[in-house]
Amino acid sequence: MAPVPTRDDKFSFGLWTVGWQARDLFGEATRPVLAGVEAVHKLAELGAYGITFHDDDLVPPGSSSGERQRIVDEFKQALADTGMVVPMVTTNLFGDPVFKDGGFTSNDRSVRRYALRKVMRNMDLAAELGAGIYVFWGGREGSEVDFAKDVRAALDRYREGIDLLAQYSIDKGYGMRFAIEPKPNEPRGDILLPSIGHALAFISELEHADMVGINPETGHEQMASLNYTHGIAQALWQGKLFHIDLNGQKGPRYDQDLVFGYGDLLQAFSTVDLLENGAPGGGPTYDGDRHFDYKPLRTENMEGVWESALANMELYLTLRERARAFRADPRVQEALTDGGVPDLSQPSLNEGETHQQLVADRSAFEDYDLEAARTKGYGFARIQRLAIEHLLAVG
Amino acid sequence: MAPVPTRDDKFSFGLWTVGWQARDLFGEATRPVLAGVEAVHKLAELGAYGITFHDDDLVPPGSSSGERQRIVDEFKQALADTGMVVPMVTTNLFGDPVFKDGGFTSNDRSVRRYALRKVMRNMDLAAELGAGIYVFWGGREGSEVDFAKDVRAALDRYREGIDLLAQYSIDKGYGMRFAIEPKPNEPRGDILLPSIGHALAFISELEHADMVGINPETGHEQMASLNYTHGIAQALWQGKLFHIDLNGQKGPRYDQDLVFGYGDLLQAFSTVDLLENGAPGGGPTYDGDRHFDYKPLRTENMEGVWESALANMELYLTLRERARAFRADPRVQEALTDGGVPDLSQPSLNEGETHQQLVADRSAFEDYDLEAARTKGYGFARIQRLAIEHLLAVG
Amino acid sequence: MAPVPTRDDKFSFGLWTVGWQARDLFGEATRPVLAGVEAVHKLAELGAYGITFHDDDLVPPGSSSGERQRIVDEFKQALADTGMVVPMVTTNLFGDPVFKDGGFTSNDRSVRRYALRKVMRNMDLAAELGAGIYVFWGGREGSEVDFAKDVRAALDRYREGIDLLAQYSIDKGYGMRFAIEPKPNEPRGDILLPSIGHALAFISELEHADMVGINPETGHEQMASLNYTHGIAQALWQGKLFHIDLNGQKGPRYDQDLVFGYGDLLQAFSTVDLLENGAPGGGPTYDGDRHFDYKPLRTENMEGVWESALANMELYLTLRERARAFRADPRVQEALTDGGVPDLSQPSLNEGETHQQLVADRSAFEDYDLEAARTKGYGFARIQRLAIEHLLAVG
Amino acid sequence: MAPVPTRDDKFSFGLWTVGWQARDLFGEATRPVLAGVEAVHKLAELGAYGITFHDDDLVPPGSSSGERQRIVDEFKQALADTGMVVPMVTTNLFGDPVFKDGGFTSNDRSVRRYALRKVMRNMDLAAELGAGIYVFWGGREGSEVDFAKDVRAALDRYREGIDLLAQYSIDKGYGMRFAIEPKPNEPRGDILLPSIGHALAFISELEHADMVGINPETGHEQMASLNYTHGIAQALWQGKLFHIDLNGQKGPRYDQDLVFGYGDLLQAFSTVDLLENGAPGGGPTYDGDRHFDYKPLRTENMEGVWESALANMELYLTLRERARAFRADPRVQEALTDGGVPDLSQPSLNEGETHQQLVADRSAFEDYDLEAARTKGYGFARIQRLAIEHLLAVG
Repeated sequence: MAPVPTRDDKFSFGLWTVGWQARDLFGEATRPVLAGVEAVHKLAELGAYGITFHDDDLVPPGSSSGERQRIVDEFKQALADTGMVVPMVTTNLFGDPVFKDGGFTSNDRSVRRYALRKVMRNMDLAAELGAGIYVFWGGREGSEVDFAKDVRAALDRYREGIDLLAQYSIDKGYGMRFAIEPKPNEPRGDILLPSIGHALAFISELEHADMVGINPETGHEQMASLNYTHGIAQALWQGKLFHIDLNGQKGPRYDQDLVFGYGDLLQAFSTVDLLENGAPGGGPTYDGDRHFDYKPLRTENMEGVWESALANMELYLTLRERARAFRADPRVQEALTDGGVPDLSQPSLNEGETHQQLVADRSAFEDYDLEAARTKGYGFARIQRLAIEHLLAVG
Repeated sequence: MAPVPTRDDKFSFGLWTVGWQARDLFGEATRPVLAGVEAVHKLAELGAYGITFHDDDLVPPGSSSGERQRIVDEFKQALADTGMVVPMVTTNLFGDPVFKDGGFTSNDRSVRRYALRKVMRNMDLAAELGAGIYVFWGGREGSEVDFAKDVRAALDRYREGIDLLAQYSIDKGYGMRFAIEPKPNEPRGDILLPSIGHALAFISELEHADMVGINPETGHEQMASLNYTHGIAQALWQGKLFHIDLNGQKGPRYDQDLVFGYGDLLQAFSTVDLLENGAPGGGPTYDGDRHFDYKPLRTENMEGVWESALANMELYLTLRERARAFRADPRVQEALTDGGVPDLSQPSLNEGETHQQLVADRSAFEDYDLEAARTKGYGFARIQRLAIEHLLAVG
Repeated sequence: MAPVPTRDDKFSFGLWTVGWQARDLFGEATRPVLAGVEAVHKLAELGAYGITFHDDDLVPPGSSSGERQRIVDEFKQALADTGMVVPMVTTNLFGDPVFKDGGFTSNDRSVRRYALRKVMRNMDLAAELGAGIYVFWGGREGSEVDFAKDVRAALDRYREGIDLLAQYSIDKGYGMRFAIEPKPNEPRGDILLPSIGHALAFISELEHADMVGINPETGHEQMASLNYTHGIAQALWQGKLFHIDLNGQKGPRYDQDLVFGYGDLLQAFSTVDLLENGAPGGGPTYDGDRHFDYKPLRTENMEGVWESALANMELYLTLRERARAFRADPRVQEALTDGGVPDLSQPSLNEGETHQQLVADRSAFEDYDLEAARTKGYGFARIQRLAIEHLLAVG
Repeated sequence: MAPVPTRDDKFSFGLWTVGWQARDLFGEATRPVLAGVEAVHKLAELGAYGITFHDDDLVPPGSSSGERQRIVDEFKQALADTGMVVPMVTTNLFGDPVFKDGGFTSNDRSVRRYALRKVMRNMDLAAELGAGIYVFWGGREGSEVDFAKDVRAALDRYREGIDLLAQYSIDKGYGMRFAIEPKPNEPRGDILLPSIGHALAFISELEHADMVGINPETGHEQMASLNYTHGIAQALWQGKLFHIDLNGQKGPRYDQDLVFGYGDLLQAFSTVDLLENGAPGGGPTYDGDRHFDYKPLRTENMEGVWESALANMELYLTLRERARAFRADPRVQEALTDGGVPDLSQPSLNEGETHQQLVADRSAFEDYDLEAARTKGYGFARIQRLAIEHLLAVG
C-alpha cells in the first residue's frame, strides 16, 4: 500500500500547479480552466492541507471589484468547508506585458511603482486569508543584454522594494514573513538573485533582514547544477529556510517542474531526510508546509493532473518513511561514525584554544602522521550503499 | 598593432598557470617543470606586474627548511630584479591525499587542524612577500554522497577556520584581506560555497566579516550557468570584490580554464566594462590586480604557454579600449537613456515617500496607463547591436 | 560603416521569428500580430532574400478555404512585388493540442495519420511557392516518461512517415529535399533525434536517404553542450547539410533563440568560416540560404524587432569579412601549417599501404622517436590568438 | 537481503576502474597500484564474470618484452584459476603525451601511424585472450580551437584508421566486433563523435560498417543532457548496441563516473528495463556483458573500492528484479495500453496504403474529430507513478 497523505503531513499546492492549462511557448492549452474552489475541494480530498496562489491565479486580471469579492468569498467558503489553509501567497509580477523588463527592477520607474502597488493590494488579501508567508519570485527581474541593466542600481531598487513592503506588513500588523525565491534564468536570460546563495547575501543587506528568508525551489537550483540539499542546509544554517518549493528537474535545461522526486530521486531522498530529520549532528528541521510547485504533464487531462498531485505527496511520504528507517538503522549509525560524520560537529580547536596554542601543538603539524591520514578510507561508499538500500527497500 | 601590456595595467598570473605541466585526469605531463624564478622573469618581460602562488607551487612539498629558504630567497631576488610584486597568495589544501575529504571541513578533525597550520605557515610567507590578499579556494570542501557530509557542521567548521585565521592576521599585524573563491563542483561532486552568492552569504556570518570578501572566477560561475558580470556586480554592490580570477569557460562542463575571453567573449566584454568603468549609473570600479587563472592548452610547449599568457593580457586591453569607446559614444548614451538604464538609479519612491503616500497616488495604480507601458519598446536590441559594433570595431 | 546586406547574401528569416508576439510560458504577448505580407516587405527592405514559414504562421488555423486562398494570394503578390523567395517551408506539428504527444510518433494512431495529412497539404503549398527544402522539426516527438514511449516503435513510425512523404514528393514531381532539424529537449523532456548525429544516423535507415538531410540549429546543438561548427562539419562530410538555422544560445538552458552570434561569438566565427570558406583542407561550402531562426527579445516593440533582424545579417557579414581576411593572412597560413592542420588531409597510410606493410615499418613504432612527439608544441595557442585578432580587427 | 551477483549475470569491470589510484587533475593518488591478477581474483570473488583493460592498464608502458610476457602469463593464469573471461579489450590512446592532439586524428601523421600500430599490437593480445569486442574511445580526438582542427579531414582519418583495423581483424581471423565509444568533451574541449548519434552516423560511412557498432556510456550521454535510454534504444533499433558502459553522472559537468544508478536513478531503471526486457512492443534485448566503467570515490581505500564494485552489481540486480515485476504487473499493462504505448507499434498506414489512399480517407483529416484528440489524456502520469512504485517497492 502506498502511504496515504493526511492533513498532518502539511502538504500544499500552488493553485497554478494543478490549474496549469498546459499552454507553453510552443503550443496551446490542453486543459480547461480550473476554478480555485474546485481545486480546494479536490486537493483536500486527496489529503492536502493547504493551497497557495498568485493574485492573478485566483482573481483573473481585469475582474471588477464585485467579481473579485465574489471569487474571494467563494474561495474562503471552500476553505471553511474543507479545513484547507492558505499558508503562503505570492504576486504575479511576470505575466502582464507591463512587467516585460521586471517589476521592482524595471528600467521604467512607473512600472516599479505599479509593481509595488500590485503587491500591496495582494498582501491585504493574503493577510485576510491568514497567510503567514509572502513569496517573492522575481522571474522578470533580469536581462538578456548585459549593457542594458545596471545591476548595482537594480539591487538598490530591489532592496528599496522589499524594505518598503516589509514596513507595510509591520505597520499593518500583518506579521508576515517574506521569502525570496531564486532562479538562475528563464524567462529572462539571466535573473537577478539567481541562487539560494545570492538571495541569502542580498537579504543580509535589507533593513528588515530578520523578517526575510528564502523559498528555494528544487529545480531552480538544479538548473544551475547546484545541490539542492546543500543549499537548503546552508539556508537552515543561516536561519532562513522560511518556505520551500518541491519539484523535479533533470539538470541544466528548461524549467521542467516535474513531480517531486522525478528528477534527481537520490537527492530528493537526502532533501526529505534533511527537512524531516535535520542535520546528522543536530539542528532545526523544516516546520512549514511541504509545498509542491510542479506542472502536470501537458499530455494529461484532469485525471492525470490529480494523479500527479497525489504522486508528489505519496513519494514524499515514502521518502520520509525510508529516511526514518535509514537513520534508525544501527549499520547506518556505525557507518556514519566510521566515516567521521559526527566528528565534524566537533570544533577543530580545543575549547578556548588560541592560534598560538595551535601553533605550539606539534602533533597538529610537525609530528602529524600524514601517511595514516593519506591512506585511511572514509567509507563513504558504504554510506551511499546503505542509503540506496533504504531508498529502494532492498532486503 | 595589438595593445602592449605594461606594469600599469596591473596584470598578474598564478605561478600554477604558466607552470602547469599539463598532467590531467587522463594523461601525463607534456611540459617540464617551470621554476618560480623563471616565471617571474618571463612574465615581467611580457608586461605583467605580479605573480601569485600556492605554497606548494613555490616550494615543493617535502623540501627541507634549507631548500625552502633558498627557493624563497631566489624568488625574492627575482622579484627585486624585475620589480614584480606578489599581490596575492593562497594555500594548496587539495593536492595532498590528506585533504581528500577537505581541509577546514574534513570529517577528520586532525586533518582540519593540519590544514589550519598549513595556512598559517604560508600566511607568514605571504606577509613576508607583501601580499595584501589571501585567497581561500576550498576545492575539496564538499561531498559526492549527501549523507556523508553534515553541511551544517561543515559550515560551522568553515567559519571557525576563517575566524581563527582572520584573528591570526590581525594579531600578527599582517593587515591582509581574505578572499573566498567559490566553485560549484570538480574535483568534488558538490563543493561547499558553490557560487558568488553562497560565499557572500557565508561571509555575512563571520566574526571578522569586514576583512573577508570574494575572489570570483569567470569559469566557476559559468560552470553553474551563472552570469559572471552580474555576479561581480552584486559583489561590488556588497563591497566584497576583493580579488578576481579571469579566464574562459564554455558553460556547464569540466573546468576548462581557457584564456580570458575564449569562452563567452561577449560577457568578457561586459565584465571588463564593469571592472574598468563601473556600473552605468556610477559605483566603484575594481582596483586590484587583474589576475588570470587559466591553463595553457595541453598541446602546447613553453612557447605556446607564453603566447597564451600574452593573449590574456592583450585581449583584456583590447576589451578595455573597446569598452571605453562604447561608453564615450553618444549613440550609446542615447540608447541607454532611451532604454531607461539611467532611470533605474532613480529611487522608485519619491524622497521620503511612505507606503501610505504611495497608496494614495492613484497615478501609480488605479489610473496608471497600463497600455502604454505594455506596448512600449525598451530598445535593448539597439544597445546590444551597438555593443557588438564596438566589440568588433565595426565601421 | 556596418556592412549592408543585399539579396546576393541569401539571407532568409522564418515568418515566426519577426512575427513572434513574445508570448512565453510565463507571460502574455507584448507585440501585435504581424501579417505575412508586411513581413515580406519589411525584410526585403532590410536586405533579406527569402522568407520561410510553418503552415499555421501564414494561414491561421481554422481559416476557411476562401480566407486561406486570399492570404496565399496576397503573400504571393508580396513576393512578386519584392522579389523575395521562399527557399524553405515547414509544418507546425507542435502547437495544436492534438500533437501533445507528437505528430509522426504520437501514441495515438489517428494523430499520426492527421499529422501526415497536415504535412501533405502544406507540401502542396510549398511546391506552389517554389520551396526546394522542406523542414521537419519534431518538437513534440519525444517523452517525459521513459516507460510511456516505445522508442523503437517511435523510430519505426518516424521512418514510415518520412518515407511516405518522400514518396509523395517524388510522385508529385515536387523535387523537394527534406531536412530534419534535431533538438535535445524542450518542449518535451527528451526529444527523439536529439542531435545532428542522431538525425544523420536515422537518415541512413530511410528508404529515400539520398533526398533527406539535416537542418541543424546553432542553439539546439549548444543546448546539448555540442560544438555546432563540428556538427555541421560532420554533416558536410556526409553530404547532408541541406539547410541551416542560425541563432545564439548560452549553453545548456532553455532555448533562447538569440540573434546569431549573441551566444558563443567565437564559435559563430568558425561557423561562418566553415560555411563560407569550407574546411581548411578543402571540401564543399554551404550554398543554401542563410536562415535565421531567432526570437526578438520580449522587451522590444516592432522597431526593436527590425533592429534585431538587421543585427543578424550585419553580424554574419562582419564575420564573413573577418573570416576571409583570416584565411588570407600569411601569418595564419604559416601558423596552420606549423600546427599540422594541412597535414591532417594527408592519409595516414602511404598510397596502397597494407597493414602488413605498416607493421613492417619499424620507423612507425619500434624506432619511433616518441620523445620528440611528446615534447613538440602544436602552436594552437597562436592560431587562436590570430583568430581573435581577426575577429576583433585588432591592429 | 540484497541480491547476490553470480557469473550468469555477466557483470564485468574495467581493470582501470577498481584499479584507479584516484589521482585527479587537482591531487595525487590516494590508493596503491592494484595488480591485474589481484583484480581478477577479487572481482571473481564478488560475483563478476569478466574483466576488461586498456593495453597500458595491464602492461605498464615501457615494460620489457620479458616483463610483458610474464604479466600476460600471470593474468591468463588468474583467468584460468577463476573462470573469469575477457569480453572486451581497448587501447589507451590518450595517456601518453604523444597523443596530446589525438591518435587517429592527430595533426601529426607520425602520431597517427604510431597509434594504429599501438592498437594492432593490442588487438593481437585481445585475440589471444578471446575478447570478442574491441572498443575505441577517442578521448583525445578533438580540439579546443576550432580553427586548429580540420574536422572533415579528421573524419577521413578516423575512417581510414577504423577501416584499416577492421581489415586487420578480418585478415588475422580475429572475428572481433568493434565498438566506438562517444563522449562530448573532456579531456578535449570538444571531442569528435560526441554522442551516440554522431558515432552511429559515422559508422554508416565505414567500409566494414557491419562489424562496427557502439559502446555508449551512461555518463557520457548525460554530460550532453541526452537521455541514455533513448540513445541505446536508437542503437538497438539500428542493430548497433555491441557493448555498454554503465555508470552514473549528475548532468552536464565533469565526467563523474559514479556507481551505476548513483546519478539519474530513475533513468537507470528504464535503462535496465530496456536492456533486459527489450522495447515494450518487442525487439532485441542486450546480450553482451554488463560492463561497469566507474571510478571509486577518491576518499576510499581498497575496502571502499570493493564495496562500490559490489554496489554496481547489486543495484543492477535490484533494478532488473523491479523491472521484471513492473512488466508483469497487470495494472502496468493496463496503463500502458490506455496510454497507447502498444499502439505505436502499429503502422500509421494500413497495409499497402498509398499516399493517394491516405488523402482519400476523409476520416484522417477533413472529418477528423480534433476536439476529442485535443482533450484526451494519455495517462503518462499514471505510468510514471506505477514505475516509481515498482522502483521503490512501495506497498
